[in-house]
Amino acid sequence: MAFVNEDNITDLAVERWATAHSPRLAELMTTLVRYLHAYTREVRITEDEWTAAIEWLTELGKISTDKRQEVILASDVLGLSMLVVQLNNRFSPEATPATVLGPFHIDGSPAAPYGFDMSDGIPGTPLYLTGTVTDPQGKPVPNAVLDVWQADAEGTYESQLSEIDEARLRAKYQTREDGTYCIRTIAPLGYTIPMDGPVGDLIRTTDISCYRPAHIHFLIEEPGYEKLITHLFQQGSDYLDSDVVFGVKDALILPFTERPAGPTPDGGTLDRTYLHGEYDFVLQPEGS
Amino acid sequence: MAFVNEDNITDLAVERWATAHSPRLAELMTTLVRYLHAYTREVRITEDEWTAAIEWLTELGKISTDKRQEVILASDVLGLSMLVVQLNNRFSPEATPATVLGPFHIDGSPAAPYGFDMSDGIPGTPLYLTGTVTDPQGKPVPNAVLDVWQADAEGTYESQLSEIDEARLRAKYQTREDGTYCIRTIAPLGYTIPMDGPVGDLIRTTDISCYRPAHIHFLIEEPGYEKLITHLFQQGSDYLDSDVVFGVKDALILPFTERPAGPTPDGGTLDRTYLHGEYDFVLQPEGS
Repeated sequence: MAFVNEDNITDLAVERWATAHSPRLAELMTTLVRYLHAYTREVRITEDEWTAAIEWLTELGKISTDKRQEVILASDVLGLSMLVVQLNNRFSPEATPATVLGPFHIDGSPAAPYGFDMSDGIPGTPLYLTGTVTDPQGKPVPNAVLDVWQADAEGTYESQLSEIDEARLRAKYQTREDGTYCIRTIAPLGYTIPMDGPVGDLIRTTDISCYRPAHIHFLIEEPGYEKLITHLFQQGSDYLDSDVVFGVKDALILPFTERPAGPTPDGGTLDRTYLHGEYDFVLQPEGS
Repeated sequence: MAFVNEDNITDLAVERWATAHSPRLAELMTTLVRYLHAYTREVRITEDEWTAAIEWLTELGKISTDKRQEVILASDVLGLSMLVVQLNNRFSPEATPATVLGPFHIDGSPAAPYGFDMSDGIPGTPLYLTGTVTDPQGKPVPNAVLDVWQADAEGTYESQLSEIDEARLRAKYQTREDGTYCIRTIAPLGYTIPMDGPVGDLIRTTDISCYRPAHIHFLIEEPGYEKLITHLFQQGSDYLDSDVVFGVKDALILPFTERPAGPTPDGGTLDRTYLHGEYDFVLQPEGS
């Protein structure tokens, strides 16, 4: 009968979790036990530090609601979310790279026609995004769905607001037969992650910037291709090199060019200056 | 300007958390990032597994209250709590070993005289615990405070109940001039950890037993000695070799001997049979 001591406790715990009925869960849990124990031994966690960690982890769950997910935020700022994205989206170099989904996506955004204004009167600088969705050989992908969402000029997403009547700064566009799309919205701005919870408390004890650079979210789906979850970032915007969630990739940055009042990319006209970004998405064929 | 990719993200995250203002926090966080990333890479966490982990961690905090601490329970069943106890209580082999505090300790238990019955009419088999508190050379430690607590015959601790008027199955005894103590209570029983939360959900997917063996908690304090947080376990009780929180040590097991009705260890008499356990605690001198 093996009673516990400092030397055998890790092996005892591994042995026990190896009884998980699913082989994958057994692998996940036994490896987790080994890593957590090795970490605890290497830094020799004190009892006060353990207590502080317990309280911090508890608070992550307590502050989370259907409008706020502090555990995801913790994973984000530790670089874990972005690591998981990369391990699971090893696209070829020609394909548009993936980045984090973030906690603000809402299912079921309304379908929007070519050039639809998803900002619908919300204050901001008008922005047109145009381009194509193709395969790695440049062949257009027609009817691909571009599920698009972003924060307003205050950095607030619809999912952070109380119930509102209609979709706010989100819509599902589709490519035309030639693979082209056209989105009208407002220019995004950088914003800070929520700093009034346990993640904010921890970040304030470091020199880490709490900001994300200006970006627009995309979830692009078309049968036969890998789902692409990504952002587009405005070239030259602040915080590109210090994104608190590690989401920026060079290939996702594009210029937003200022255009004079007059004709717009969707064939209409606008009586004020606006911004225009051009970006061609390349989807990774499924299973390749 | 280094944008993120699968190869550099760990170094980028380590570099960032190295800016923690406290050198100890910088050590804890950078090492944590390395271990979490190494684990994530080794088992190659899928996006669905990551989501399941986020939800499980969130639920740990959500279900925790001032009567229940599910994050501690998670730490317990992974063997982490007991590992931390051992790393921080490296006593000499002569000293009584430490074990987990558990989540049920209540501060400020009432002082109890020698032989006081802390079970106060709660149903159960009467149990006397007697012995000494000494230093490693056998010198009695007078006036040492033994803060004692345990579950009732249903496995319920006072801290799990709604507000009650007076202390229930807990008291602070003190050693006499010759280092002796005498506690009267009821025999503890084994019990299951709470199985209606995320920890229970996980354990049910394994063959891990959800039981703890019968035990009584002690927190023994006396200036000049290391604080001793430990349990006493009844020899022969169930689950000694499968304690779900890994708390059992050979040196903490003692027989509870059945005694006939008649004289009791505190100099009184009892009109029914009772159990008697004898245990000598040895405190580790401070800083030794």
